[in-house]
Amino acid sequence: MALLMTDNEITLAIVQSLKEGRILEFQEVMDELQPYDMAQHYLRIPDKHRTKFLLYLTTEQLTELMDELDSEEQMEILQKLGVEKSKKVLDRMDNDDLASLLADIEPHRADELLANMNSDESTIVQNLMNYPPETAGRIMNPRYVWIPSHYTIREAIDKIKHFVHYAEFLNYLYVVDEDKRLEGVVSYKDLLLGELDEEIKNVMYSRVVKADVMTDQEEVANLISRYDFVSLPIVEDDNRLVGVVTVDDVIDVVMQEANEDIEKLSASGKSIDFKTKPIVAAYRRLPWLVLLLFIGLLSGGIISRFEATLETVVALTFFMPMIAGMTGNTGTQSLAVVVRGLVSQKPNFRQSIKLIVRELWVGIIIGIICAVLITGIAYFWQGSLVLGFVVGSSLLLTLIIGTMAGTIIPLILFKLNIDPAVASGPLITTINDILSLLIYFGIATVFITQLM
Amino acid sequence: MALLMTDNEITLAIVQSLKEGRILEFQEVMDELQPYDMAQHYLRIPDKHRTKFLLYLTTEQLTELMDELDSEEQMEILQKLGVEKSKKVLDRMDNDDLASLLADIEPHRADELLANMNSDESTIVQNLMNYPPETAGRIMNPRYVWIPSHYTIREAIDKIKHFVHYAEFLNYLYVVDEDKRLEGVVSYKDLLLGELDEEIKNVMYSRVVKADVMTDQEEVANLISRYDFVSLPIVEDDNRLVGVVTVDDVIDVVMQEANEDIEKLSASGKSIDFKTKPIVAAYRRLPWLVLLLFIGLLSGGIISRFEATLETVVALTFFMPMIAGMTGNTGTQSLAVVVRGLVSQKPNFRQSIKLIVRELWVGIIIGIICAVLITGIAYFWQGSLVLGFVVGSSLLLTLIIGTMAGTIIPLILFKLNIDPAVASGPLITTINDILSLLIYFGIATVFITQLM
Repeated sequence: MALLMTDNEITLAIVQSLKEGRILEFQEVMDELQPYDMAQHYLRIPDKHRTKFLLYLTTEQLTELMDELDSEEQMEILQKLGVEKSKKVLDRMDNDDLASLLADIEPHRADELLANMNSDESTIVQNLMNYPPETAGRIMNPRYVWIPSHYTIREAIDKIKHFVHYAEFLNYLYVVDEDKRLEGVVSYKDLLLGELDEEIKNVMYSRVVKADVMTDQEEVANLISRYDFVSLPIVEDDNRLVGVVTVDDVIDVVMQEANEDIEKLSASGKSIDFKTKPIVAAYRRLPWLVLLLFIGLLSGGIISRFEATLETVVALTFFMPMIAGMTGNTGTQSLAVVVRGLVSQKPNFRQSIKLIVRELWVGIIIGIICAVLITGIAYFWQGSLVLGFVVGSSLLLTLIIGTMAGTIIPLILFKLNIDPAVASGPLITTINDILSLLIYFGIATVFITQLM
Repeated sequence: MALLMTDNEITLAIVQSLKEGRILEFQEVMDELQPYDMAQHYLRIPDKHRTKFLLYLTTEQLTELMDELDSEEQMEILQKLGVEKSKKVLDRMDNDDLASLLADIEPHRADELLANMNSDESTIVQNLMNYPPETAGRIMNPRYVWIPSHYTIREAIDKIKHFVHYAEFLNYLYVVDEDKRLEGVVSYKDLLLGELDEEIKNVMYSRVVKADVMTDQEEVANLISRYDFVSLPIVEDDNRLVGVVTVDDVIDVVMQEANEDIEKLSASGKSIDFKTKPIVAAYRRLPWLVLLLFIGLLSGGIISRFEATLETVVALTFFMPMIAGMTGNTGTQSLAVVVRGLVSQKPNFRQSIKLIVRELWVGIIIGIICAVLITGIAYFWQGSLVLGFVVGSSLLLTLIIGTMAGTIIPLILFKLNIDPAVASGPLITTINDILSLLIYFGIATVFITQLM
């Protein structure tokens, strides 16, 4: 029925069936909906109908709904459900999603939830939470379908049928020995094409691409996208299989990492979206702004030391915003290229040198073109060739330095295992501001008699 | 054998077998490698061995290798292979990958390649290329496995077995009527759990999530990641199924779109990576820099109109970089939040107003805190309470205006269907620079007698 209805009609039908207590009609609509759409309708209906909406859902549907919501909404639902039903839902939720819920809420609430759960399940989740955030161990799903290598294809298919509810994504079967050490992988394609009596060891692929539990989530995403996998097995030190990361988690990781880079490059503070409250957003952005305020004052301090030069030739002030701005811009351009390049490629020493030399050339080319342009403009505007020369040569130097700072600093931070995006934005701004003003006023002071 | 070897040992073994012409040994190593690794080894061996490497590969392996390389490397391989073998490889390549190769090279080379291909294949590729870039039609794969709804599960499985080489990702079967109109979808899970004699129409899911051929690729990526799909069916106006977009393409899209946003926000120019030549990188970055240079001069022009004020109170210059910088920074922060938020959410009018009000509050909170801070600092540094008041009140005003410009401008551009990231970076910088200087010097000029 829901098949032919628009979204609004479905919302109306849901509210109607809730009001009139027609659970069968409600279920009929729910059966047709994807989990994401179910969640959208839940969020769209008036608040007063939500508790009934939840009570009408099966435990399985509740679990699907939970997986689509954010931590705040999840906690609200658990409260509405009460202890008994919450326990059932928590036991069924994907353990990686559950771990991220528990990481988001206050520790004492997390402990309460864990205490309410089936002890097997809570142990699994607590194990996941022992891995550091943003590692493979933290985002993996510890439930996956595994088989021994002596199984036949027929036995493997039977096992899949049995555990079909457990596997998040069904696409590969992982083959392990008696100690759970990873021996190989078979895809569904292999199972479909092979004879039913063939042994798995003869069709499996042994050179398994895998990742260690401590691998950074960005690296996991790179592996999966490079090899076009749907899932990646995660092992511990001794090659023991402990979980699987699936491609749906990877898309979230890729988006999250890109957003983090943008947040850091624009110094916009962590995790601010359309729903963040003003006071929270202001609190998250303030640290950067206060830092940048002091950086701005540092530039002011440098200018104040050249007060005599400035008082003599006020026209020097007119070119100040342009020179500081341009140096900042080239620095940011280089920084963006390096930071995004590092996402998919880890350059060795030789490649880094090559990149630095490339950027040096870019700085020189851009510097010369802009310097010639500004020398002409300055001459025609202010009628002084010396001023034109001072502004032009300053710009050439600062553009080269800006490009180099934007390239070398993130590379050094990367080698030191510090995230280049976070530290280098303000760092490069400071260095470029200070250097550009020193160079500009330095050159101007040298030529002060000619400028007067 | 390759199973126990390190990457370097494998490269050595490959070169050795090529040198000594031992094709069987070479093939043995290749059989163990993933396409991505095969490509890495190909790129790593000395150039003189590459032609032999290619000749030793089967057509299937060559096709896999091609899919892992960029357009330049692909063209090099086609040249080395000669017309006959090229034809075979082109006929077998994924049509979406082929379309993106043809879009990258010069038109007359593309025509040559198409002329060499099997006419069925070249027609398919040319059809793909008729869709605008960055749409679902352009990135979809027109080869997928479809079945009529009257098939039994047994017949469906037979069809999969038969077409297993055609399907990029095997995970869903799409169900169509006699006119190829999309009727439903069955997952492998459904096939595994159902009885072999059950008809597909009884197990298929009819409320199929799909996208139109003209849908923007970013929207396709959103759909797939929202619903945790492995593939998404693409239809034409009349609901006729014409292709499938798979999750591996979506990861690339997500990365590409994030990079585009970063490029635009940092005005760093299109598609510059570690391999781009200096002259090309300089050429791509220059337009922005020249634009920003003139914007910088515009600020200089405004300052020059306040020459009298500046000559009277040189200390005003000291706070200029801080005020302009802070306004720019808050603007960029808001811009980044809005641009990234728009990736996953399209706000309606009410939501836009809510967002603007939120950012207004953020601007007011941040503005008051920074203004109080700077008033104190200016007073202690320069010993003038009036100067402190002028600087502080200017900062409060400019921060609020900077936040608003960074929020409202991208939202307006978005409503006008212009990419907010591309147009608003320089636009916001200009507006913020000009307004902040006008406000600062304007307030200063009003209080000039008290400042002296």
